Amino acid sequence: MTFELQILGSGSATPMVGRHPTAQLLAVEEGRYLIDCGEGTQLRLLEHRRRLSSLRVVFISHLHGDHFFGLFGLLSTMHLQGRQEPLTVVGPPGLDLVLTTQAFHSRMQPGYNITFVPVDTEAHAVVYEDALVRVWSLPMHHRIACAGYLFEEQPRRDKLVKEKLPAGLTPTELAQLAQGQDLPADPATGRPALAHADVSVPAAPPRRYAFCSDTIYTPALAELVQGVDLLYHEATFLHDMRERAAQTYHSTARQAAELAHTADAHRLLIGHFSSRYKQLDAHLQEAREIFPWTELATEGLLVSV
Amino acid sequence: MTFELQILGSGSATPMVGRHPTAQLLAVEEGRYLIDCGEGTQLRLLEHRRRLSSLRVVFISHLHGDHFFGLFGLLSTMHLQGRQEPLTVVGPPGLDLVLTTQAFHSRMQPGYNITFVPVDTEAHAVVYEDALVRVWSLPMHHRIACAGYLFEEQPRRDKLVKEKLPAGLTPTELAQLAQGQDLPADPATGRPALAHADVSVPAAPPRRYAFCSDTIYTPALAELVQGVDLLYHEATFLHDMRERAAQTYHSTARQAAELAHTADAHRLLIGHFSSRYKQLDAHLQEAREIFPWTELATEGLLVSV
Repeated sequence: MTFELQILGSGSATPMVGRHPTAQLLAVEEGRYLIDCGEGTQLRLLEHRRRLSSLRVVFISHLHGDHFFGLFGLLSTMHLQGRQEPLTVVGPPGLDLVLTTQAFHSRMQPGYNITFVPVDTEAHAVVYEDALVRVWSLPMHHRIACAGYLFEEQPRRDKLVKEKLPAGLTPTELAQLAQGQDLPADPATGRPALAHADVSVPAAPPRRYAFCSDTIYTPALAELVQGVDLLYHEATFLHDMRERAAQTYHSTARQAAELAHTADAHRLLIGHFSSRYKQLDAHLQEAREIFPWTELATEGLLVSV
Repeated sequence: MTFELQILGSGSATPMVGRHPTAQLLAVEEGRYLIDCGEGTQLRLLEHRRRLSSLRVVFISHLHGDHFFGLFGLLSTMHLQGRQEPLTVVGPPGLDLVLTTQAFHSRMQPGYNITFVPVDTEAHAVVYEDALVRVWSLPMHHRIACAGYLFEEQPRRDKLVKEKLPAGLTPTELAQLAQGQDLPADPATGRPALAHADVSVPAAPPRRYAFCSDTIYTPALAELVQGVDLLYHEATFLHDMRERAAQTYHSTARQAAELAHTADAHRLLIGHFSSRYKQLDAHLQEAREIFPWTELATEGLLVSV
């Protein structure tokens, strides 16, 4: 049961050799979801041997270049590769116009259908759902309209316990039990009533990943991401630069950890590091003092939830 | 006297690990001119320790993504770096609308002035000039409006030969000679007339570089680039795929060499290789059979003219 995140970029707005702008790939079962798409993301996917054709949905947090300038190339390459499967792009209003203006002047008429889902970046609402995941927007507070995203896998079914099942059940009866139904007694065979709860073990609760992109420290977010299995939170600065962080609507490593602590998250990833920091040990140390289960969201990191 | 070209990308439309999309940096004295700007070009410039702030002009050949998707990030980073010097962008009509639509929705108001020069891609005309270079458009024939560019350094002055100058010339007289003027006889001092040609050696002819971006093989181009010191010509395919090349409005290595031969170019660079070719020995061999002074325009190559 796959629920796995790969970090493709840990950098921020100013480019830096060895660090790439924000992009993450979330795999839930066979579903592949790209979260943000900074310049060069298609090459990162190639380097990690991820097929572009496997992507179902792209979520864009906001229209600062380090979060979406790779989208032009990604969509264009999908077209060149002969993609026919539809693609959904979820992002702030305006993104569709930026993309269609470029496509028009590049004379690119994609051979696949792109559904654009505009996000109200001030709301906490379901913005996408399929058989594998349900995704909510998370209101960020940045210099420009910006959404985070909360991914929750669809509830799994309770698992039937073979040893507790009586012999002689028909396939229909087994299917009813698997779907969570109770079976009434069967006078014809003399089988007593069977309660679903008595022959199954409850499924694990749905796993959840919260992506908190560029934002000023917003304690109220904790309530929306309460108890998530994995929290990503930007940590552009160290805490001695908290004034600069606030001025630019960014957060510090310590603030990211405070949020993870308040939200009672299981694990924290921090990223979106300012290019002024060549080493990141201080970020990790600062966050771990508040929230020990912190890791750096650096290039290539693979996290299984 | 610098006249130097650096190749930043040798790839074509389909991305490939280890090869980057088209971008070249031309240095003429202190002038820095970027030619095409595929995705990731700003990072290539950083890797080669080229300051973005030094760029004066960006020339874009056409609006296929592998030739301009890096421009969004480049212009954005220049803004973040606090650039104030104006920038000129030369390219096909439509590019300005693509860029301004993105900038508007990204809420980016650059702190520097961008002058956009639309190019008539069917004409051979001067599209840019400063104290160092004069640049002509070269009509390419591609699936979309596409221009090549011919760079010619401004004529240099003939050099005065110290040993041939009589003693006692005033600074004004020296300046007149340096500017190419003859001096009449001076009855006051008895100095005879002085012909500029008699006291100088002619300057070397202006150096020229022709960039022939994506195009179907077009023999008529040879006349426009006759005798250039350095010719870049795309060579997307090998000659056994000349039909595919023609269908997609691209050229083969052999055709690039034919053009260099007909144009009597001094040297040829070939690039824009299809990602189907992992090795490029065959391209080089095929071209050199026609035009021995051929090199592969691979990543990082530095050519002094």
